[in-house]
Amino acid sequence: MIKVGVVGYGVIGQRLADGLALQEDMELVGVSGNANPTLAIRALKEKGMPYKLFMASLDKKEIFDQLNIPISGTLEDLVKESDVILDATSAGGGMKNKELYEKYNKKVIFQGGEKNSVADVFFHGYANYEKGLGQDYLKLTSCNTTGLIRAVDCIDKEVGVERVAITIVRRVADPGDYHRGLTNALKVDAAPSHQAVDLMTIMPHIEATGILVHTPVTHGHIITVLATPKREISKEELLDMFNKHPRIRVVKIADGFQGNASLFRYARDLGNPRGDMYEIAVFDETIVKSGKDIMFAINIPQEAVVIPESIDAIRAATQMQTDKEEALKLTNQYLGMGKWMK
Amino acid sequence: MIKVGVVGYGVIGQRLADGLALQEDMELVGVSGNANPTLAIRALKEKGMPYKLFMASLDKKEIFDQLNIPISGTLEDLVKESDVILDATSAGGGMKNKELYEKYNKKVIFQGGEKNSVADVFFHGYANYEKGLGQDYLKLTSCNTTGLIRAVDCIDKEVGVERVAITIVRRVADPGDYHRGLTNALKVDAAPSHQAVDLMTIMPHIEATGILVHTPVTHGHIITVLATPKREISKEELLDMFNKHPRIRVVKIADGFQGNASLFRYARDLGNPRGDMYEIAVFDETIVKSGKDIMFAINIPQEAVVIPESIDAIRAATQMQTDKEEALKLTNQYLGMGKWMK
Amino acid sequence: MIKVGVVGYGVIGQRLADGLALQEDMELVGVSGNANPTLAIRALKEKGMPYKLFMASLDKKEIFDQLNIPISGTLEDLVKESDVILDATSAGGGMKNKELYEKYNKKVIFQGGEKNSVADVFFHGYANYEKGLGQDYLKLTSCNTTGLIRAVDCIDKEVGVERVAITIVRRVADPGDYHRGLTNALKVDAAPSHQAVDLMTIMPHIEATGILVHTPVTHGHIITVLATPKREISKEELLDMFNKHPRIRVVKIADGFQGNASLFRYARDLGNPRGDMYEIAVFDETIVKSGKDIMFAINIPQEAVVIPESIDAIRAATQMQTDKEEALKLTNQYLGMGKWMK
Amino acid sequence: MIKVGVVGYGVIGQRLADGLALQEDMELVGVSGNANPTLAIRALKEKGMPYKLFMASLDKKEIFDQLNIPISGTLEDLVKESDVILDATSAGGGMKNKELYEKYNKKVIFQGGEKNSVADVFFHGYANYEKGLGQDYLKLTSCNTTGLIRAVDCIDKEVGVERVAITIVRRVADPGDYHRGLTNALKVDAAPSHQAVDLMTIMPHIEATGILVHTPVTHGHIITVLATPKREISKEELLDMFNKHPRIRVVKIADGFQGNASLFRYARDLGNPRGDMYEIAVFDETIVKSGKDIMFAINIPQEAVVIPESIDAIRAATQMQTDKEEALKLTNQYLGMGKWMK
Repeated sequence: MIKVGVVGYGVIGQRLADGLALQEDMELVGVSGNANPTLAIRALKEKGMPYKLFMASLDKKEIFDQLNIPISGTLEDLVKESDVILDATSAGGGMKNKELYEKYNKKVIFQGGEKNSVADVFFHGYANYEKGLGQDYLKLTSCNTTGLIRAVDCIDKEVGVERVAITIVRRVADPGDYHRGLTNALKVDAAPSHQAVDLMTIMPHIEATGILVHTPVTHGHIITVLATPKREISKEELLDMFNKHPRIRVVKIADGFQGNASLFRYARDLGNPRGDMYEIAVFDETIVKSGKDIMFAINIPQEAVVIPESIDAIRAATQMQTDKEEALKLTNQYLGMGKWMK
Repeated sequence: MIKVGVVGYGVIGQRLADGLALQEDMELVGVSGNANPTLAIRALKEKGMPYKLFMASLDKKEIFDQLNIPISGTLEDLVKESDVILDATSAGGGMKNKELYEKYNKKVIFQGGEKNSVADVFFHGYANYEKGLGQDYLKLTSCNTTGLIRAVDCIDKEVGVERVAITIVRRVADPGDYHRGLTNALKVDAAPSHQAVDLMTIMPHIEATGILVHTPVTHGHIITVLATPKREISKEELLDMFNKHPRIRVVKIADGFQGNASLFRYARDLGNPRGDMYEIAVFDETIVKSGKDIMFAINIPQEAVVIPESIDAIRAATQMQTDKEEALKLTNQYLGMGKWMK
Repeated sequence: MIKVGVVGYGVIGQRLADGLALQEDMELVGVSGNANPTLAIRALKEKGMPYKLFMASLDKKEIFDQLNIPISGTLEDLVKESDVILDATSAGGGMKNKELYEKYNKKVIFQGGEKNSVADVFFHGYANYEKGLGQDYLKLTSCNTTGLIRAVDCIDKEVGVERVAITIVRRVADPGDYHRGLTNALKVDAAPSHQAVDLMTIMPHIEATGILVHTPVTHGHIITVLATPKREISKEELLDMFNKHPRIRVVKIADGFQGNASLFRYARDLGNPRGDMYEIAVFDETIVKSGKDIMFAINIPQEAVVIPESIDAIRAATQMQTDKEEALKLTNQYLGMGKWMK
Repeated sequence: MIKVGVVGYGVIGQRLADGLALQEDMELVGVSGNANPTLAIRALKEKGMPYKLFMASLDKKEIFDQLNIPISGTLEDLVKESDVILDATSAGGGMKNKELYEKYNKKVIFQGGEKNSVADVFFHGYANYEKGLGQDYLKLTSCNTTGLIRAVDCIDKEVGVERVAITIVRRVADPGDYHRGLTNALKVDAAPSHQAVDLMTIMPHIEATGILVHTPVTHGHIITVLATPKREISKEELLDMFNKHPRIRVVKIADGFQGNASLFRYARDLGNPRGDMYEIAVFDETIVKSGKDIMFAINIPQEAVVIPESIDAIRAATQMQTDKEEALKLTNQYLGMGKWMK
C-alpha cells in the first residue's frame, strides 16, 4: 500500500488528510504542522489524534507537551516514512521543503500556490492525467483553475473547445481567516487572470483570457465562462455533459441554489465533514447561448475542490493506475463522488 | 421510550432532529416540513432519509414523488405518533399549530421566536428546569438569551448576581440566508433589547438592561456582559466557574480564537456535523474588572446553541428526570458536551 | 427656460435635482416627496430648502409643520408648474403617476426601474438621442445599462461592434440602505441579464448576452465586457476611444484605483457633492485581447451615473437641441464632465 | 494670523486641511505628502490645487512633473513657514518627524495613533482644554475616544460621572481602504480597550473599562456607554444635556437613523464635503436606565470626528484663546457646527 505524508496542516492540508484517509488503497502516514499549536492541531487533539502529528520544528515541543499533544517525529521522519508527499504548505513552502524531499528521493504533489518551476508537470486529473504518469514532482492547479478546467475539459472531451473567456468573482478569504479580508469593496486585478493563463498551459489548444474581481465573501468563487465549442451545442447537450460528470453538480436557482452560500449550506446539511464539497456546481438557469458561444456560471468550493485531483496526482505519479479512467473512478469512489447521480 | 416529533425542518429543526437522534432514551418519530422540497429536504433525501419525513401539506406531493422523496404522512400523523413535539417552525408557526397539538393532547416545546403567551413556562434548562416539570407547553429562550443565561446563571449559582448590562453584537443572518441581510451597515435597535427583558423573566431577581447592534456577519453573536455579582470575584474565580460548565468553553485570543469566525472554523475542524457548536465561548482575555463589576465577552453559535436546552425541556415536560442535575447530565452526555474538559 | 419638476426625492431624485440645478438653460421648479419626512427631506430642510418641496400626499402635513419644513404644494401643483417631469419614484411609481402627467399633457422622463411600456422610447443620450426627439414619454436605461452602453457605444461609433458578452458584478445596495442587503453571499440570477437584453433593445445591431452576480458591497458595480468589434483593434486604440469620451474615465490600478471603493473615495476627495461620480471608469490594466475580441472591466457608480443621460433626455424630448452633439456638449459642460481631460 | 502646516495628506490630513481652511483666524500654509502621487494628491490636482503641496521626499519629483502637479517645497520648507504643525502622518510618523519640528521650534498637534510619549499633553478640547494652553506638543485622542469623551464629558460637566463601561463596535476600515479589511467575521480584542484607558488618562476621576469588537463595515463606530452619574438622571435630563452640545446630534431610529450608514447617508445628503460629519450622534431610543446607571449608544464618524478637537488644540497650544469657551465657540462657528440646533 502506498504510504502518503501530508506536509502542512492548514485549510488544504486537513482536507487532504481526510480525503486520503478515505482511499482504501493508500495509507496516511501522518501530517506535519509547523512549530505552533494552531487551531487545526488543537482540533486534531480534541478529536483524539486520528492522524499522527509530525512537526517541522520541535522548538516549541514543551508547549505541545503541556497541551498533551503527542508528536510522532519531525518533518524529516514523516518524509522518510512516506512514499509520496502531499505538500500543502503555504505558498513558497513547497519550494523550501523540496531539498528535503529530494534528499530522500520522494515523489511530491505540490499545491497550486507554488511556482510552476517547482514541479515537472502542471497537473489536472481529468485534463492531463497521462502527463503525470511516473513523474516525481507534480503541481496541482489552483482551486479556481481546477474547477474551471473540470467544466471546460468536460465540454472539450465531447465536442472540442476553441476559446474561453472567463470572469472570476473571487471569494477573498476562507471562513475563519483573520489575516486577510476586504470590507465593502470589489477589487480588480490586472488581466489576464492567472487562471486563464494556467488553463492554456494545461490545455494548450484553447485560447483563454479572463478578468478577476475579488469580493468580500468566504463561501465559494463564482466563475462565468464563455466557451466557443468546435461545433454549436444546445443547452440540453451541455447539461447532458455536465450531468454525467461525477465532479460536477448541476443545480437550479429555482430549487434554492441561489449562489455560493446555498451550496455551502447544502454541503453542511448533507453532513459532509466541515460542510465541504468536492464538486463544482453549474447553475442551470445561467446557461445561455450567444451565436455559437455558450455561457454559464459555476461555483468553486475553494477549500475542498482540489482534493480529488490531488489524489489523482498520487495515482499518476506512483503509476498505481496507468489507466486514467480507472484512476479517476477509484478516487471518485473512495471520496463518495457522484453518489447523488444514482 | 419517549417519542418525539420535530415540526419544522429549517436551520433549527434539522439540528433538533440530529440532537434528538443522539439521545439514547428518546425516539425520533420523524420531522415535518412545510409544502416544499427545500434544500434541507433535498439534503435529507441525498443522505438516504435517515429521518422519516412528514408534510404540513400534501399539496405538492407529486413534486416529491418526482424527486423520489418518500413522505411518511401528514403533520397530523406525526403529532399523533409522538408523545412530545419540538416545534421549530418559523416565528408564529407554533401558535398556528397549537390547535392541532391541543387536539391530540401533546406536550410541546416551542422555540424562542414564538410569543411567550404560546406557552405555560418560559424555560431554560440550567436556570429554571424545575418550572418546566410536568408542564404541557414550554417555550425556549432565543439563541442569544439561551447563551447569555448560561453564563449569568453560572455566576449566579456560585455567588449571586445583582445586575447585568449587555451589548449584543448580533450576526444578522445565517450562512446561506438569502432572504435577509445587511450590507456594510451597523443597525441599532431600540433599547432595552428583548434579551435583557427575557433574562429578567427567567431570573427575576436580576436587574438587566442592554442594547443590540446588528452586524453584517453570519458566524455567531458576540455579547459583552457587565455583571454585578453579590460579592466581588476575581478573574480567576470567574474562569473557574466557567471552566466547570459543560456548555461553556473558555478560549484564548492568543491561541487563535480571535472572534466568532474562529469558533466556527474550529467546530468545522472538530468534525462537528455542519460545523455546529452547542457551547458558548468566553474569551479569556476580555475578562476585566471595574470596581465590584466584572465584564467579559461571549460567543453565541446561533444555529445550534439552543439544542441542549430544547432537549432539557423534553426531560422536564415529560418528567423523564425530575432531578435537574440528572437531566442536564444526560443531555450533555448524549450530545458529547464537555468532552474537551477531560 | 424649460421648467422641470422632479418627482421622487430618494437616491436618484436628489441627484437629478442637483444636476438640474446646474443646467443654466433649465429651471428646477421643485421636488416632490411622498407623504413622509424622510432623511432626504430632513437634509433638504437642514440645508435651508434650496429646492421647493411638494408632496404627493398632504396626509401628514402637520408632521412637516412641526418640523418647520415648508411645503410648496401638491404633486399636482408641481406637475402643473412644470414643462417636463423627471419621474424618479421607486419602481412602478411612474406608471401610477402617468395618469396625472397625461392629464396635464406633460412630457416625462422615467427611470430604468419602470416597465418599458410606460414610455414611447427607451432612451440613451449617446446611443439613440435622435429617437427621443420630440417624444412625450422617455424611459432611461438602468444604471448598469447606461454605463455599459456608454462604453459599447463608444467603440461602436468608431469601429462597429458585433457582439457583447458581459458579467455584471453587482453592488447589492446603496450606502445607507437598510431595506435590502446580502451578507457573506454571492447571488446568481437567471441569464441572460436584463442589461444584455436592454442593450440589444437600444442597439439592435448588436448580439448581447450576460450573467449577473450580486455581491455584498455598496460602492459601484463592476462589469466585465467581452466585445467583438467589426475590425480588430489594439489596446491602444481602445484607450484612445475611451480617453476622448467625457463620460468615461480611464484609471489605472497601479495609480491606486484598485476597485469600486477607490473610485468612491476619489470622488469624495474631489469634493463632488455626496462623493458622487457621473463617469464610468475603465480599468486600464484589465484590457486584454483574445483573438479578435477585446475584454475590459468598467466601474458603474450606481447612484449618479444616470444623471447625465436623464438630462440629455430632457433636451431630446423638448427639442431644446435637435442636434445630438450640441445637446450632449451642454449637458456635459453644465455638469462639469470631462474637466479632468484638459 | 497663525500659520498652520498639515503634515500627512491621507484620510485625516485632507480633512484637517479642509477644516483649517474654514478657520477665518488661521492660515493654511500647505499640506505635505510622502513621496508618492496618491489618489488624495491626484484629487488635489484635479481640483486645481486649492492647497500648496509640499513633499517629504522629492525622490519621485519627475513623476509629479509628468502629472503636472506643482510642488511648493519640501516638508522642511513647510515646517519653516508654519507656526504650528498638524501632524497627520500614519502611526509612528509623528515621532519620526519630531526631530525636524524641534529643530525649528514649532508647536505640534499629533494625532491619536502616536504614542502618548510623543507629546506633553494628551488633549481633548472639551475635557481638558486648559491643560493644552501654551504647550508645545499636544496629542489628540483617537477617533473613538474623542467622540466618547464628548458624550461622557457632557454628562460629567452637568452632574458628574463616577464610572463608565463601554462596548465599542468598531468599523474595521474606511471606505476605499484596500490595505486592511475583515470579511464575515467579528474580531474581539483583549480588554480593557485603549479607549477606556485613554478616557481615564484625560478624565482621571472616572473609573472606566471596556471591550472592543471589530466589525466588517466602514461607515462609523457604534459605542454603547453605561455611565454611572453622581446623581441619578432621567432620560429627559440626558437628552437636554446632549441637545445643547454643538458637537453632538440626537437622532431617532424612528426618523430613519437606523445606524451608522444612515448617518453617512445623511451627511452626504446634507452636502457635507466627502459626506463627512464632525458630530457624534446619540440614538434617542437606545437610552435606557438600569438603577442609577444610564446606558446609550453613540455613533462615531471616524474620518472627521477629530477635526474640531484638532483645531481646538491649535487654539490652546498657541494661546490664541486662553478662555476655553471662547475657543470652542470659534472652532464650532467656523466649522458650521450646531447650525441644526437653531
